[in-house]
Order: sequence, then C-alpha cells, then structure tokens
Amino acid sequence: MSRVAYVNGTYRPHSQAVVHIEDRGFQFADGVYEVWSVFDGKLADYAGHMERLGRSLTELRIEIPMTAQALGVVLRETIRRNKVRDGIVYLQITRGTAPRDHAFPKGVAPSVIVTAKSIDLHKGEKNAEKGVAGITHPDIRWGRCDIKTVGLLPNALAKQAAREKGAYEAILFDEMGMVTEGSSTNAWIVDENGKLRTRDTQANILRGITRAAIMKLVKEEGIELDERPFSVEEAKKAKELFVTAASSFVMPIVSLDGEKIGDGKPGPIATRLRSVYVEQAIRDAI
Amino acid sequence: MSRVAYVNGTYRPHSQAVVHIEDRGFQFADGVYEVWSVFDGKLADYAGHMERLGRSLTELRIEIPMTAQALGVVLRETIRRNKVRDGIVYLQITRGTAPRDHAFPKGVAPSVIVTAKSIDLHKGEKNAEKGVAGITHPDIRWGRCDIKTVGLLPNALAKQAAREKGAYEAILFDEMGMVTEGSSTNAWIVDENGKLRTRDTQANILRGITRAAIMKLVKEEGIELDERPFSVEEAKKAKELFVTAASSFVMPIVSLDGEKIGDGKPGPIATRLRSVYVEQAIRDAI
Repeated sequence: MSRVAYVNGTYRPHSQAVVHIEDRGFQFADGVYEVWSVFDGKLADYAGHMERLGRSLTELRIEIPMTAQALGVVLRETIRRNKVRDGIVYLQITRGTAPRDHAFPKGVAPSVIVTAKSIDLHKGEKNAEKGVAGITHPDIRWGRCDIKTVGLLPNALAKQAAREKGAYEAILFDEMGMVTEGSSTNAWIVDENGKLRTRDTQANILRGITRAAIMKLVKEEGIELDERPFSVEEAKKAKELFVTAASSFVMPIVSLDGEKIGDGKPGPIATRLRSVYVEQAIRDAI
Repeated sequence: MSRVAYVNGTYRPHSQAVVHIEDRGFQFADGVYEVWSVFDGKLADYAGHMERLGRSLTELRIEIPMTAQALGVVLRETIRRNKVRDGIVYLQITRGTAPRDHAFPKGVAPSVIVTAKSIDLHKGEKNAEKGVAGITHPDIRWGRCDIKTVGLLPNALAKQAAREKGAYEAILFDEMGMVTEGSSTNAWIVDENGKLRTRDTQANILRGITRAAIMKLVKEEGIELDERPFSVEEAKKAKELFVTAASSFVMPIVSLDGEKIGDGKPGPIATRLRSVYVEQAIRDAI
C-alpha cells in the first residue's frame, strides 16, 4: 500500500510530499511537532498532545493555522488514508516559507504536515518483556527543551551514540551529573529506598504527555512519587530504571553503560505501569 | 528575473525548489550550512568557508556527497544562473531523507541545496556609516555552536527580539554575563583601555570565517588583540563595539540596550577594519 501524507492542505503520495527549501523548518529548525500513538485507528492521549502543541506554538508565536478541531480531522483522515490500525501519527508545524532571514517573516502562513505509519506493537512488547539497554550521555541541548521543537540534532546525536553501543536509549545528564531525561523519552527510577522518582519540570526538560499520564496512574495505583532530580549514580544503583514516551509507552531499562540495573530484569513497578498505561491509553483513545 | 536554486543535482526554478518532508534537515535540524559573500560574481573567503563546511560535516559524520571542487562549481553556476554580481550564495547540506528515526539512517545520500541572491551593498554601507543599534540577549543555544548547523531557532528568537526593539543585532551573553557572540555574527569591542577584544574559540561560539580574516588583518595593521571574554558591562563601557559576519562584514554597533557606545558614532578601529576587510575580500574573491 502506498503511503499518503498531508502537506499544507492537500493529501499527496508520501514520495511526493515536499516542502520548499526556504521553509523555516528546513533552514532554521523553526517549527514544532507532536507524535500520537494510534490504537485501533484512534489517537491516544489526544487532548494532552493537542494542548502541548498549542503551548509550543504560543511560546514560539507561530499562529495556529487552523482550529484544533480541524487539525484533529486531518490527523484522523491521514490515519484512515494510510489504513493505520496500530501505529503513530506525526504532526509538524513550522513558521512557513519565506526568504531566508533570522527574524520572523510577516504575513506568512505556517506549514502543516502530517504523516502516519503502522507499527508492530508486538516488537515493543517483546522489548518491554526483556528490558532494554541504556547509555548515559551529556545533555547539550538548548535552554528551552520545554518547547517541542524540531531542533533535535543533539537528541539525534545522543540516540546514535546509544545505537552504536547496542543500546535502546541515551539517558541525558546535566553539568551536575543529574539525569534530565532520555533522548526521546522521560526517565524514571525506583530508587534504592523503593521510591519512584522522575525529574521535575522546573528543569530544562520536555513536559512529556505520557509522563503526565503515568503520574496520574501512579497516584491511582497508590504509588508514592518523588518528583525531584536523581543522579546517574543513583540511576545505576536503582532498583528499576525506565523511560516513557508516546510511542514506547513504558520501557524498562535493565542495564546502563553496561551495568546491571536491579537484578537485570524489568521490575514490578515498570511492568505494572506499562500494563495499566497501555490498557488506559487504548480505552481512552478517541 | 526568476531565481534558480540547485537541489540535489538539478537546477530548478526557485519556486519549485523543494525537499522531502522526511529530509532530516526539516525534521531534526540534522544539517549544516555556509554563506559566502559574492563580489563581482566571485566568492569571498572561499577556502575558509569550504574548510569550515568540511569540519562541520566531519563533526556530524555526514559524508561529503561531492568533492569540494564539484561543490565550488555548483556554487559558481548558481551565482551565474541567478546573475548575481554582488550578493550572497547559500549552501545547505543535510543528512538526507529517511524514514523518521532519531538515529542516523544507513545508505542515505545527503541533500545538497544552493541558492544565490543579489544584495544592494549600498544599504549595508549606509548602516555601517551611521552605525546600528544592538540589544543584549541570553545565550540559550546548545553546547556545540562550533558546528554551523541549521538548528538556528535560538538565534532566530534572539534576532527577532532585536528587531522588535528596532535593533540590528542581539548580542548574546552566557550565564556568567560574558558576551559569547551575536545571533548571526561574532562580537568585538575596543575596551576602556583601547584594547581590541573578542571571545576566544574555547568558548561555545562559532569560529567565524570573517572573524578569522579580521584577526589576520588586525595583525597586519599592527593592532593588539586580546582574545578573551568580555562582559555585557564592559561592552557598554567600551570605546567601540562591532560585529563581523560574511554578509555584513564589519558592522559598528553604536548603542546597546539603548545605551550609547563611546560617542555614539562608529569608531576608528571598526571603520578601518571594515574598509580593509572589504578591500581585501574583493581583491581575494575567487
């Protein structure tokens, strides 16, 4: 089946989905994005991602080119045209195309592109059952990681470093040796004392939508959460280490820089949270 | 006259110059660029920019898609087809188009795009004669500003802040209050003691090609240079403040955050350096 992408008002064959070379997404990383998981053709955490999108656009003063409702229609139509049952849908909005100049152009319409693709959920499930490897990597990103921009080169470099060591994810740490988040995930530990911890959003991290959903579930499950920094050292000594993201849900990390985490197997809290998160995400997908 | 752009092997009308939406330049800011000034159809500081391009590509492990010589031919042909006498030529190379995944794709050809446009040199000359306004702005860029990537959103935000205050450039300062560089320029002062200063490249700044050319001229002119950090406060008390870049040469800043620099007019050192730089750049353009 040939894929279809939405580009600025029209659906086009994926191979012909293009933007102008002076799109500010291409020349300035002047754009934002969101990724939704799709279950049975429906979007998980729909409202959460849509809200964050609005916030990213507001922070960058990119004027929302269409209503959230119209965007929702496009997301669903892209899913439908690509016959995606389980997978992801990707939305990117940039400040638009204009003669190259650092400052914002005037009177330019933002670019909107949407793609969708099927994903074999079993593969992720298998990874989660065994747990995956992680590495640590310095966090050298810019100072506004709360905005979900396409300026992802540092993330890409960190992810590549992980892949080259056969690892699934790079856990980023700041100048103080404290974990910020993963290269495309938020990071959590169950510390030596059995306390669940994740970095607070006062830090320069993305306010993960899956992170927020997990926090709600944690409360419902009666698990105590300590929202404060933990060090790389604490992560290595932790009982459990896991990462969360829209497309990987809850993924247990069972080794970090080659050092075994806990007993080297996915722990009970990560396993439980993955199970209830997926169940809830499927149930609430719209 | 309709403009022409080079895109991945072909010359196309500018309006039809496009890249795929999954070009990594568009989705990850995974690409680098260079800008050359063009004088009488010839490229200024040709070798310097070409060398830095090679370094940027090497640092990101993007395999140079063609020889420097072949790239040079494309730059010149793009200048010729656009009938540019005086202006700039812009080259961008990205890691290429591949299904979205943070880690590097395998076996993918980098994308190469080139544009050229004419610029009215008199406008810049007028600005330089009067001097321009600057503002100060926090430097929130990533940790590898030595690589000339298209991850320019923080630079764009800083430049926009400057424009909104009627200023030409934003002078960036780090957490210690020390100036790093301008949003698209390197920054220099003649300090209270008459000493020429610019930030050293041990700092997280771009190794400006115009900066390097000016440093050579400074030596030839017998001007002493102190390559070390200066603070925002020192910049405001300086006798002269100016910025350098390929497209603006040497531009005197005569006010910073509304405070007059020196006597509020372009100083003798900036004026002299601009004159000898432009003369030399025109003479050595190839």
